[in-house]
Amino acid sequence: MTTRLYYLGPQGTFTHQAAIAAASELRRHMPEESFDLVACANIGDVFAGAQRGEFGVVAWENNVEGVVVPNLDALLDSADMAGVARVDVHVTFDAFVTTDTAHRYGESAERILRHCSSVTAHPHGLAQCRTFTKRYGLEPVPATSNAAGCQNLASESVALAPSLCGDLYGLHTVARAVQDFDGARTSFLVLTNRAHAVQFMDEYRTQDAGGYESIIGFVPLATGPGVLADLLNKFRDAGLNMVSLMSRPIKGHDGTYSFIATIDQAPWQVQCRHVLERVMGHGDWVKTLAVYPHHTQVYPPVTDWMLPQGGICTQMEPQATRHNMQGELLW
Amino acid sequence: MTTRLYYLGPQGTFTHQAAIAAASELRRHMPEESFDLVACANIGDVFAGAQRGEFGVVAWENNVEGVVVPNLDALLDSADMAGVARVDVHVTFDAFVTTDTAHRYGESAERILRHCSSVTAHPHGLAQCRTFTKRYGLEPVPATSNAAGCQNLASESVALAPSLCGDLYGLHTVARAVQDFDGARTSFLVLTNRAHAVQFMDEYRTQDAGGYESIIGFVPLATGPGVLADLLNKFRDAGLNMVSLMSRPIKGHDGTYSFIATIDQAPWQVQCRHVLERVMGHGDWVKTLAVYPHHTQVYPPVTDWMLPQGGICTQMEPQATRHNMQGELLW
Repeated sequence: MTTRLYYLGPQGTFTHQAAIAAASELRRHMPEESFDLVACANIGDVFAGAQRGEFGVVAWENNVEGVVVPNLDALLDSADMAGVARVDVHVTFDAFVTTDTAHRYGESAERILRHCSSVTAHPHGLAQCRTFTKRYGLEPVPATSNAAGCQNLASESVALAPSLCGDLYGLHTVARAVQDFDGARTSFLVLTNRAHAVQFMDEYRTQDAGGYESIIGFVPLATGPGVLADLLNKFRDAGLNMVSLMSRPIKGHDGTYSFIATIDQAPWQVQCRHVLERVMGHGDWVKTLAVYPHHTQVYPPVTDWMLPQGGICTQMEPQATRHNMQGELLW
Repeated sequence: MTTRLYYLGPQGTFTHQAAIAAASELRRHMPEESFDLVACANIGDVFAGAQRGEFGVVAWENNVEGVVVPNLDALLDSADMAGVARVDVHVTFDAFVTTDTAHRYGESAERILRHCSSVTAHPHGLAQCRTFTKRYGLEPVPATSNAAGCQNLASESVALAPSLCGDLYGLHTVARAVQDFDGARTSFLVLTNRAHAVQFMDEYRTQDAGGYESIIGFVPLATGPGVLADLLNKFRDAGLNMVSLMSRPIKGHDGTYSFIATIDQAPWQVQCRHVLERVMGHGDWVKTLAVYPHHTQVYPPVTDWMLPQGGICTQMEPQATRHNMQGELLW
């Protein structure tokens, strides 16, 4: 069988790379299946594909930029969509030139780059490769996407893009991993509709291979002080750990909030199910947004060399309390 | 006296608009002062200006895109920086043409636009004005910033940018507020160094005009289940309300988190000070990131027409529990 897997195009973006990883992750659970990757012109088409019971891959969180809020809002408010897998993509840019440019200046990457005069990418890509751009004195030319920069690459110009663009657009890779900051990572959710997600859960439950993570949305019906503390006490009492938490205003209603928690259990596992029952018993709104297999979570103790600069921490430096408390706390 | 106020340039960005608003907000507290607005080439220079005790304006949160995480990380980890004011800017795009283009096709905006063939802006700006672009069949041409699009505007081309760009770049405003979505809003923090921030707090405390809001960072030294619940219980016990909350991994250390809470009191006010004392007494790391005068916060009860689609809420629809709990909770 062939199932379509939609992603936000054009081809050659990090999302395309995530779609390739998503197909291989899904194949672990659907070994008979093959996947047809479809690049969409807008994110609405990706969601529509997921809602039909096929798959959609959307950016969820970047370790530098944080959560991709519009996608979170769309999933939270969708009538029929849930995440069943999560894949990580390392954000690393390669530098490309046309094969003509490469042939003209020979084998040495250094020589080719010294003959180039401009560099093109999405403004985010340009901003992430400033050191490289400066070293070769290249003039930055913005493109609508990194892939678009590859597609229309002029001679004696460099395109910055994910590594898969070399093969995709028939370009010569002149340098690898030219980004200023190493270690940026974007994670993507693989979405489908809820009937299909339930089938995945049935399989996850029976194989029960390793751990699971869930993303769950809550809206407490009361508002004001203590609402979130009451909710989190239910998690603590169950011994359940949250991997992350954020609040989002409910659209157009100042002062009302939803909370989105990532939890290191699946909803069918004892403690998580118990918490969901208690939250529902309390009358609050709840929806599971995604459940997926995950890697081991570590909870190291925080040592002082991990703390941000400034601030007050009496446990680490008792003397700090005397001289700089006013400055650090502004009280 | 003249004080410099730095913002991320070029001139004519929404940040520039925020810097103008920031100067007028600061003038309420420093009526003798005049402000020299300085456009910086990179955000590091904006932070450096604040750290010298002058002012820096940085984007903090957008109601559609969420928190600007890199600026949050920078403030959390800064040795000597704090926010003393917050200003909101509505994200609204005007359409501009050169005065030559305007003269060539006369008074009618419709006629001028029908003779244009391309539209330029930062890719985000282009993405936010798709309806307008389609209506006039314009070819999108990406620019490194909306202001850069205005600066190099070709004839028979339209630039999309904040309204202040008309005067700034001597362009003709051909249409106002052409964005697809109305109601996007970005809020900005005005930063200075901590010695200067303490002076602001002294003045805020004595005038005590209206309410204050604080942004406070916490790092619990223990990690694992219940850590955040314990922290939030201290807020609840004090009757203190959080306006928003998010968690951020500590850089390079998976499984360790900081929590950033926005609270509707200043740190010197009784309940907030009490919570900070308890948190410090517990040995956790804490730092006040910003304190500023704010508008009244409302806490309306949540009614069902505000809830996201799907999900389970027994208080609103008791019958929902029977037929769709598995689909909504994935348990």
